[in-house]
Amino acid sequence: MNTISNRHQVTIEADHTVPVIRMTRDFDATPAQLMRAHTDPELFARWVGPNGMQTKVLDWDATTGGRWRYVAGRDGEEYGFHGCFHDVSEGRIVQTFTFDGQPDGVALETLRFEDLGDGRTRLHAQSLVDSFEGRDQWLASGMQTGVGEGYAKLDDLLAQL
Amino acid sequence: MNTISNRHQVTIEADHTVPVIRMTRDFDATPAQLMRAHTDPELFARWVGPNGMQTKVLDWDATTGGRWRYVAGRDGEEYGFHGCFHDVSEGRIVQTFTFDGQPDGVALETLRFEDLGDGRTRLHAQSLVDSFEGRDQWLASGMQTGVGEGYAKLDDLLAQL
Repeated sequence: MNTISNRHQVTIEADHTVPVIRMTRDFDATPAQLMRAHTDPELFARWVGPNGMQTKVLDWDATTGGRWRYVAGRDGEEYGFHGCFHDVSEGRIVQTFTFDGQPDGVALETLRFEDLGDGRTRLHAQSLVDSFEGRDQWLASGMQTGVGEGYAKLDDLLAQL
Repeated sequence: MNTISNRHQVTIEADHTVPVIRMTRDFDATPAQLMRAHTDPELFARWVGPNGMQTKVLDWDATTGGRWRYVAGRDGEEYGFHGCFHDVSEGRIVQTFTFDGQPDGVALETLRFEDLGDGRTRLHAQSLVDSFEGRDQWLASGMQTGVGEGYAKLDDLLAQL
């Protein structure tokens, strides 16, 4: 089932001038399939997060002005996340993001699905916070592993859509 | 009616290291009154924006995960704005902000109402965008006038609450 997981790698870059992280990742799926996997709560819960983490969606309205909330659990520990959807339109999602363990920290995330043709899509994800310290703490937290494992699960899911 | 309008001045600062604008303004009102004037759509429409601008709220749910949309009109021209409320809790509002004329531009705004005692409150407003160019364009647009005039109207409104 995981045979195609490592065909594409995620590129993660920290901007030098603004407190932004940019991630780029190619997928063997159309922009519409990527959009569906990011906006359908049942699909989203199946791929987001590192391996072994179970995601339970508590609130979900993936439309412009909507909201989301989920908890992710592993080994008896639960981690909550929530935000609102600023914009959900063709090929683009803008949303806020907070980890409930750090309620004052808010990221503004922008996802763009670039159509590469031939059923392939390049995901451009940008995460903006208000300090370099906060941005760099997140980078140092090992988030690359969770992101990479999540996108490998998304590869598998997209192959089934 | 405008006798107390100029008692307090708004301070507007551009951060040198991150694309943030910070505004500070004192009010002769409690944090609860300030919160009400920012979350009640009828009150909000009465003070926001420069003099002579009429604000019409089209959509409003000032709760965590809610949404907002309004149009402001003057001299036959209309300007639309929208966003979502990431967090509305005691003394704090975090929301997104887009001017419909620049749909790709999104600001993440944080308002804090600091209780100064004796029925006075200091508003701390932070606006974060993803580039210094966008931030500085907004500063150069003359937004100080609109902000100052809006807060003078808010002074008058708060005196009636």
